Amino acid sequence: MVLMRKPIITLLTDFGNKDPYVAEMKAVILTICPEAIIVDISHEVEKFNIRMGAFFLASSANFFPKGTIHVGVVDPGVGTERRAIVVETDKDLFVGPDNGLLMLAAERQGLKNIYSIQNTDYMLPKISYTFHGRDIFSPVAAHLALGVPASAMGPKIEDYVLPDFAKPSVDGEVIVGEVLHVDGFGNVITNFSEDFLRGFGLNEGDLIDVSVNERSFRLRLCKAYGEVEKGELLAIFDSYGFLEFSVNLGNASNFLGAKIGDKVKIKLNF
Amino acid sequence: MVLMRKPIITLLTDFGNKDPYVAEMKAVILTICPEAIIVDISHEVEKFNIRMGAFFLASSANFFPKGTIHVGVVDPGVGTERRAIVVETDKDLFVGPDNGLLMLAAERQGLKNIYSIQNTDYMLPKISYTFHGRDIFSPVAAHLALGVPASAMGPKIEDYVLPDFAKPSVDGEVIVGEVLHVDGFGNVITNFSEDFLRGFGLNEGDLIDVSVNERSFRLRLCKAYGEVEKGELLAIFDSYGFLEFSVNLGNASNFLGAKIGDKVKIKLNF
Amino acid sequence: MVLMRKPIITLLTDFGNKDPYVAEMKAVILTICPEAIIVDISHEVEKFNIRMGAFFLASSANFFPKGTIHVGVVDPGVGTERRAIVVETDKDLFVGPDNGLLMLAAERQGLKNIYSIQNTDYMLPKISYTFHGRDIFSPVAAHLALGVPASAMGPKIEDYVLPDFAKPSVDGEVIVGEVLHVDGFGNVITNFSEDFLRGFGLNEGDLIDVSVNERSFRLRLCKAYGEVEKGELLAIFDSYGFLEFSVNLGNASNFLGAKIGDKVKIKLNF
Repeated sequence: MVLMRKPIITLLTDFGNKDPYVAEMKAVILTICPEAIIVDISHEVEKFNIRMGAFFLASSANFFPKGTIHVGVVDPGVGTERRAIVVETDKDLFVGPDNGLLMLAAERQGLKNIYSIQNTDYMLPKISYTFHGRDIFSPVAAHLALGVPASAMGPKIEDYVLPDFAKPSVDGEVIVGEVLHVDGFGNVITNFSEDFLRGFGLNEGDLIDVSVNERSFRLRLCKAYGEVEKGELLAIFDSYGFLEFSVNLGNASNFLGAKIGDKVKIKLNF
Repeated sequence: MVLMRKPIITLLTDFGNKDPYVAEMKAVILTICPEAIIVDISHEVEKFNIRMGAFFLASSANFFPKGTIHVGVVDPGVGTERRAIVVETDKDLFVGPDNGLLMLAAERQGLKNIYSIQNTDYMLPKISYTFHGRDIFSPVAAHLALGVPASAMGPKIEDYVLPDFAKPSVDGEVIVGEVLHVDGFGNVITNFSEDFLRGFGLNEGDLIDVSVNERSFRLRLCKAYGEVEKGELLAIFDSYGFLEFSVNLGNASNFLGAKIGDKVKIKLNF
Repeated sequence: MVLMRKPIITLLTDFGNKDPYVAEMKAVILTICPEAIIVDISHEVEKFNIRMGAFFLASSANFFPKGTIHVGVVDPGVGTERRAIVVETDKDLFVGPDNGLLMLAAERQGLKNIYSIQNTDYMLPKISYTFHGRDIFSPVAAHLALGVPASAMGPKIEDYVLPDFAKPSVDGEVIVGEVLHVDGFGNVITNFSEDFLRGFGLNEGDLIDVSVNERSFRLRLCKAYGEVEKGELLAIFDSYGFLEFSVNLGNASNFLGAKIGDKVKIKLNF
């Protein structure tokens, strides 16, 4: 049996939920592709924070069904010479500015082709200099949802922008990474992946000597927040597979004084 | 004529609207049940505040059509031994943690059966210890939406957790209750129900002597906010049937210095 | 080919995204019209700020397909004698209170008929005095989406409330307007329309002498934010065709100390 699935279009922006900007994108999409199911990933990405947007998109894209079309708009260069692109992967399509925003998610899915969006047939008739999310990315996504091939949008390119996101490094008996994200619960998500740390022999139950901004903490790697007392610090592999510092029923970011981009060191003594 | 209705799944969480957690739940639901119509009840429940979540769910669930599937995730015990449950009522289905969150709404609809979710066939293949909203509750809800019976999820249980929410009491010539909720307008919603107060003879137009946190106020029971002048205090039965204190075009919470959980006393002299 | 389009209902309120009020409106709509596609325009309109709501609705309504039904609820007079109306334009339908909220958008589309909503057949059986968004406007919109004609809702009226929104004026060699909106990026949107200013000969590249709250600035009219250096002030016609002051990758509202309603003067020396 073939499951007849309507096209899904996701939206990720730094527009916030107050202004009607996101609604205008949805209006344009539904005008062109009335069948589209639109899902908001987040509109509360910090303004112009491409890295946070890339992390949100990479975290969530793989949970959507194959063939989902992801529109990302964290676009400080809107109206300048920066290109608009469609990225075709082994699983999905991504539409947005050529500034790295889409590539963390796209690379995880396996890159196939990247096209520079130039064909005005698939844009709004009047294109503003300030809102390509509405005037270019949304109509392009809606046409892709109708079945227009990505290759119709413009020429294939190879020189796309790759995000330059820090990866952890090994420095003698210490590994050095950083805070990738602080979520709404105050959980401090690092850029140490589960595979990376398990390669050094880390296991649940081990104690970890951590320093954040030169302040030192010792905490245990747990499986669930509730394994420690209320208000106590723990480490855990989060649902994306990154090492996360948490306080059970509390706020680890406040506890540790940690914010996005802060340096995190872990001693390799477990 | 039988109205062909697509399944509706509602989502209520304390995840906030910034992080991509809610989007991941929607992605999982739409992967399993592409037909599902997903409606957000709220994702701004205060972190770990089961009572606020229970109030939101109980307030809104009955407005949805019969057969709606409600997913609630205010889940401080995620990853511990707390059970995951499906609650079947005379009207709807509720999916979430067994911590009382679902029961205020479910009891209002008439409880039928409660099942402990144990059948891994209806969960994601890999279950994290930190995000059962995505890995268990969402796929279970999506399978229920496909028509899988609630009884397929696991054994029936009787020893579910009931919320312990304060009810008003009578103390001589005074009734004692508390602030159930303060909404975005600053309206102060108490746990005095309309039926309860009318039983003591309260009618529109009556003056009420109220004390909140030992400060006393006299105000009139009105039918509409606009019955008093701008900036003036009034009492009103809100759209859920609870007594509410409001300031016309103002903020009663600030005016009264009242917050959730504060004690409210009313003199029985009307 | 006739494109079979499901009815679209948009929602614009000042209810916020925390309380379950918006969800209750959606529940009522989907109960009556299961086919409806519901799109949120904004629920973060400032409480009771009819003008902000009118601006949001007028900005976004025209991007939706013809026949869209727009529900607007910024309704300080709920429960009083203020009327509920349906506005029929050359393009869409608008449902909400008769307080000016709907008319800025409706007038742009060309007014056809305005009806006073009185027919209780299309309302919820029990109508609260505090929440007509749920009890009147939502069910009326859902019935319109089912194909019930607007004229079925009640008698035609002519004496509807028109919004009294300031328009710019000419004062010798100076034009005087005001700040219409400050968006989430801190962009300061004025009520000077592109047509109005181009009529005075303003062109891209021109320098503009502006004063906001009696403080003076000189800035250049640009086509894109990125034409000036990071942190630098510019003027631009925004995506709605109004003159906007922006700081490239910064916050113009903070820079200028400008907020909604502030007076803006421009010297006619370009």
